[in-house]
Amino acid sequence: MDKIIQNRLFYDFYGELLTKHQQEVLDLYYDEDLSLAEIADRLKLSRQGVYDIIKRSNQALKNYEKTLGLVSNEIKRRDRLNSINGKIKRVLKSDKLNEESKKILKESIQELEKIAN
Amino acid sequence: MDKIIQNRLFYDFYGELLTKHQQEVLDLYYDEDLSLAEIADRLKLSRQGVYDIIKRSNQALKNYEKTLGLVSNEIKRRDRLNSINGKIKRVLKSDKLNEESKKILKESIQELEKIAN
Repeated sequence: MDKIIQNRLFYDFYGELLTKHQQEVLDLYYDEDLSLAEIADRLKLSRQGVYDIIKRSNQALKNYEKTLGLVSNEIKRRDRLNSINGKIKRVLKSDKLNEESKKILKESIQELEKIAN
Repeated sequence: MDKIIQNRLFYDFYGELLTKHQQEVLDLYYDEDLSLAEIADRLKLSRQGVYDIIKRSNQALKNYEKTLGLVSNEIKRRDRLNSINGKIKRVLKSDKLNEESKKILKESIQELEKIAN
């Protein structure tokens, strides 16, 4: 998995365990997609200071994941849900279903996609 | 939700953030299903001491949940998966499916049940 996506997932899961200041920086970095220079400017910090905060925060999040492993479980589960989804799609394509069944399976597929992403 | 089941879920999610000693007690309590008196006997503690450890541990776990909310998300998600499962079961019962589709949907139902429980 892409390292940025992985760090982002760690932040989604464990971010509230960081300090408010660390969260402020990571919110700008991940949610508002600002560059280090832009964050530095916004928060009156040096670019190096922002870099250090992000680096230390990501290390802290990684340690929480090492202890709890909840993101790893989540990723496995998403894979399983996506696999189920693929199977239901196959049924929808290959079998002659009545309209009601088609509707239900389409809804289920959409809902599974939402849950798995 | 039953309070014991809820505490158990908190422990499943955040237990690794407790001390080894707290984990030792909660493992005996939740996994081996021992009584307070039995745990006290096993670990050479007083019954009151065991009670205090469990109480303090559950409070710590509850605080992690208050901060992170991951168990609450999990419960909502299980509800959604169970609802999808109910719908797929309806299709399986009410529509005339070919054997391959039946097999796939039955597998999907079983797999969803595993993920949601």
